[in-house]
Amino acid sequence: MKINYKDRLTTNEKLSKLRDLMKKNNLTAYYINTADPHQSEYIPDHYKIRSWLTGFTGSAGYAVVTQKDALLWVDGRYFIQAEQQIAASEFRMMKMATKGFPTLEEWLLNNLDYGDSLGMNGYLISEGFYRKLKFALSDKKINLQTNHHLVEDIWVDCPPLPNAPVYIHELKYTGKSAARKIQEVRKKMFEDDAEAALYAGLNDIAWLFNIRGNDVLNTPVSMAFALITIDNAYLYIDQKKVSSDVRKFLEENEITLKAYNRIYEDLPNLDVRSIVLNQANINHTLFAQIPASIKIKNKLDYPYLMKAALNDVELENQRNSYLKDSVALTKFIYYIKQNVQSEELNELNAAEKLHNLRTEQDLFIDDSFATIAAYGPNAAMMHYSATENSYSQIEPKGFLLVDSGGHYFDGTTDITRTISCGPLTDEEIKDYTLTLKAHINLARAKFLYGATGYYLDVLARQPLWQNYMDYKSGTGHAVGYLLGVHEGPQRFNMNYVNIPLEHGMVITNEPGVYKENKHGIRIENDYVVLKDKQVDTDLFMKLDCLSFVPLDKDAIDVNLLENYELEWLNNYQATVYEKISPHLKRNEKEWLKTETGKLL
Amino acid sequence: MKINYKDRLTTNEKLSKLRDLMKKNNLTAYYINTADPHQSEYIPDHYKIRSWLTGFTGSAGYAVVTQKDALLWVDGRYFIQAEQQIAASEFRMMKMATKGFPTLEEWLLNNLDYGDSLGMNGYLISEGFYRKLKFALSDKKINLQTNHHLVEDIWVDCPPLPNAPVYIHELKYTGKSAARKIQEVRKKMFEDDAEAALYAGLNDIAWLFNIRGNDVLNTPVSMAFALITIDNAYLYIDQKKVSSDVRKFLEENEITLKAYNRIYEDLPNLDVRSIVLNQANINHTLFAQIPASIKIKNKLDYPYLMKAALNDVELENQRNSYLKDSVALTKFIYYIKQNVQSEELNELNAAEKLHNLRTEQDLFIDDSFATIAAYGPNAAMMHYSATENSYSQIEPKGFLLVDSGGHYFDGTTDITRTISCGPLTDEEIKDYTLTLKAHINLARAKFLYGATGYYLDVLARQPLWQNYMDYKSGTGHAVGYLLGVHEGPQRFNMNYVNIPLEHGMVITNEPGVYKENKHGIRIENDYVVLKDKQVDTDLFMKLDCLSFVPLDKDAIDVNLLENYELEWLNNYQATVYEKISPHLKRNEKEWLKTETGKLL
Repeated sequence: MKINYKDRLTTNEKLSKLRDLMKKNNLTAYYINTADPHQSEYIPDHYKIRSWLTGFTGSAGYAVVTQKDALLWVDGRYFIQAEQQIAASEFRMMKMATKGFPTLEEWLLNNLDYGDSLGMNGYLISEGFYRKLKFALSDKKINLQTNHHLVEDIWVDCPPLPNAPVYIHELKYTGKSAARKIQEVRKKMFEDDAEAALYAGLNDIAWLFNIRGNDVLNTPVSMAFALITIDNAYLYIDQKKVSSDVRKFLEENEITLKAYNRIYEDLPNLDVRSIVLNQANINHTLFAQIPASIKIKNKLDYPYLMKAALNDVELENQRNSYLKDSVALTKFIYYIKQNVQSEELNELNAAEKLHNLRTEQDLFIDDSFATIAAYGPNAAMMHYSATENSYSQIEPKGFLLVDSGGHYFDGTTDITRTISCGPLTDEEIKDYTLTLKAHINLARAKFLYGATGYYLDVLARQPLWQNYMDYKSGTGHAVGYLLGVHEGPQRFNMNYVNIPLEHGMVITNEPGVYKENKHGIRIENDYVVLKDKQVDTDLFMKLDCLSFVPLDKDAIDVNLLENYELEWLNNYQATVYEKISPHLKRNEKEWLKTETGKLL
Repeated sequence: MKINYKDRLTTNEKLSKLRDLMKKNNLTAYYINTADPHQSEYIPDHYKIRSWLTGFTGSAGYAVVTQKDALLWVDGRYFIQAEQQIAASEFRMMKMATKGFPTLEEWLLNNLDYGDSLGMNGYLISEGFYRKLKFALSDKKINLQTNHHLVEDIWVDCPPLPNAPVYIHELKYTGKSAARKIQEVRKKMFEDDAEAALYAGLNDIAWLFNIRGNDVLNTPVSMAFALITIDNAYLYIDQKKVSSDVRKFLEENEITLKAYNRIYEDLPNLDVRSIVLNQANINHTLFAQIPASIKIKNKLDYPYLMKAALNDVELENQRNSYLKDSVALTKFIYYIKQNVQSEELNELNAAEKLHNLRTEQDLFIDDSFATIAAYGPNAAMMHYSATENSYSQIEPKGFLLVDSGGHYFDGTTDITRTISCGPLTDEEIKDYTLTLKAHINLARAKFLYGATGYYLDVLARQPLWQNYMDYKSGTGHAVGYLLGVHEGPQRFNMNYVNIPLEHGMVITNEPGVYKENKHGIRIENDYVVLKDKQVDTDLFMKLDCLSFVPLDKDAIDVNLLENYELEWLNNYQATVYEKISPHLKRNEKEWLKTETGKLL
């Protein structure tokens, strides 16, 4: 039922419509989150329901509306932005993980009455979330009603679902056919005594079937579900996206095509004894379609774990994509340094220049995320993004921080450089050098097999902690292979997850220093975990660098470096010159020679 | 029922008696572990049943006997020793955590038949172990019979239960009365909605009631149980151990004395709705006495966690005990270095000399564990202990490793020094220096509050890992306060436990290098975790050193040290001189001046 309200409503008008619908449906409260039916990190515009309702455009957050309250929970990245964007409305901000602000569960428990009904859209919440919330609210017997889409009903000019065509990720890039990957999934199903596996994660499905799409900004995936049984592999996808070539490719890999929504009809008729799935990925409405007789095995999706370590073909390609990306970055740094005195450079045209340099590289598809080009104090905001309405000029002094990446047919990249645009203060030089020490201490780590990213994270933080500084982010994340630029499961951060670093895993190393109203510094190279040396029963691992972009010699105080750090730096810079200079023009090459010269 | 066999039986004769009893009791298999009814780390001789039966005298291990098999599981520390000690018997060694050797559960599942009975002594296994084993064997419906004590029945000359007197740990040492500690336990019970708390851990009970004993070698505790309710605190203990002074002290703290075994009769009549306990500490037979109507809350014992961080009074005392202990150690090193050329020194008389030097210190009670004095290649065995029948002479070359500690009324200590007795090889010097680097890198850590010992462990290992060496042990453990020298919950090691390091926690730092048939090197100082500095919302912590014993300048290659490591070393050595020299004789002082002189 679509109700035809007029196009442009204020937030409070939207709230009023929502409250009318809540009354009609006997709902005391309504919950609105930021999600698609696949629990994707980045979601298609069609699902940006929370943004539309609240006016807050950040990438994460959730809201609760009652007849008298309208609350928006946001995390620390977005306190300032959200405050501004909801200022003219009834919405009040609830700061996550902040003293004095209740969590969602706490607020609901304190403000709903025994037996009240809380509405939400079951397609947009995971089964895991549903169970956690239901348990948390069980003391007050709160009735969770998941068959609503009240905001969607009001949002008449909602963008349509995406429909970008699907393309094949060829064997020369993947190194393994979809048919073989599916067989490996079945082997794991057998070991876990599961007769079916259900997947909703778009990255996992794209990897498993060797297909890519373009339904989500900066992520080459297509909206789909997958169901694997012992005999069949089903891909649920909008068939209009599938060309005859792709159709043929899927047939060859014994994959059966079905309509995207058909999964909701097929599951009730699924004739298996057990199914393996991840409740954090499967939406509640989809989960509810599984017959009660089927035993559920809840665990991390096999493809999620299988794709984390690249095979030899993927790794060779990934190295090549990083090399090309490093060439583009190096040319970009040269361009900035050459032109910052003479040209009108700003955060927007700098990002555009970088995009154009990437476009010149072989097999380039798209940026892997919206480039962060942040000049001066802007870089102290970790998730800063310049807009047409608000951006800074780049002056011939201080730092320009650029965090960016690209999708290529042969890989996905992510890199950050902090570029000196002219004279630096002593504090800027000290902070750059401490960040470099942090990066180096993790980069050169050798570690016994079994070590987790949590176990190693302190190596990066220690040089900063010695100076009573910390960065409020993880040190590194997994990078997909022509997939999401933020992947899992491997991470360098302060939260323990029992995922040992495996040979072939790609992971970023990006410590930083962020000083409000002063500057932001981040140095990011990406690494692949490799077996290094076996000594008796000990298998030692190492990190092998993929990114080769010069570090800024003008920002380094060599007196702050230990001998082994200086040695690492000089080796790195020499390798950059060796690998990148063949791809540069003469003047770029000359500059790089100086930039990467040995420091003493 | 005691059966009077004659005194001295061979292992195979004991096995034969055991098998007869098993037949009479219709048991297919019998399980014998190394434990007392309190799951203590060190157990009274009375309970060394597994040692008596198998002939293997190591501190850990367990056995299974059937009519045709006799198996002994031992961990890596004891492979060589156990092999020798069971060689003349039917027992076969099962190497724990070793390929090709099944675990206890695996072996039982593969070798017992459906419905077979497995016997054991329910007093000596924890409820946690019982549940785990029962679950593991449930597929074969193995019947666990826990009301047996077959080996005890055969062991006619078993040593009696210990009966050392209990003494008071005075308020000037504890800083907090037993009555107040009990009130704090009750507060936690209230928060957890528990009406009773049951404790079997001897260290926890000693701490909670401010009493000590001497029932276990090198551990100042007394065999007891404790039951705390909202209104009462019961101490179950052999009343013969309790003098009238101690009795009065307990009364003043509103603690009710009961006979040790009375707990087994009292629990069935306990009239509460809920009880909190740790199933890993409570023996199965005791647990079985709790009425089924009482709700069990299984969690780490509050006293175990409460005593981990010392209060200000305890910490000041602990610092003082370490200072005295450091004086004894420093005098010992001087003695070794002065006499190794001229006297007949060996591992036994060296350990005795050290004991005598500790005895001279104020408030000394006992060694906190059997001193490890290991010369040359002996030190490569991490748990080496010299005996009257087997010990080495100390020669004027190479290394003597001494790991030892003391109990004082004002604290418990643990320290390791590796002492050069004369010329060293280049490899010995390199390995000592790498061990020192490992020690320093952890010692100087600064870390955000919330960091665990697992998170920081890599700081110590990294300098060794860079050289493809690893030590097969944790880096550090908690040290009790006139309690066990190995305590929890804080640890530096490669196993994750979610215990943040708290202000006041004492922990060892003892990396090492162990090379079979060559040498063993370990450098151990102990540290207290302290708040260092608050910066905005960040609370930074540090490790503050308690041990002040010179490091061996002749074993250090300064060329392998980074600047910050050399700085740490020189500061440390200067502090040692400053703190220890006032307590030395003139010749000792002169030597220490040279030993701690600045290195460049």
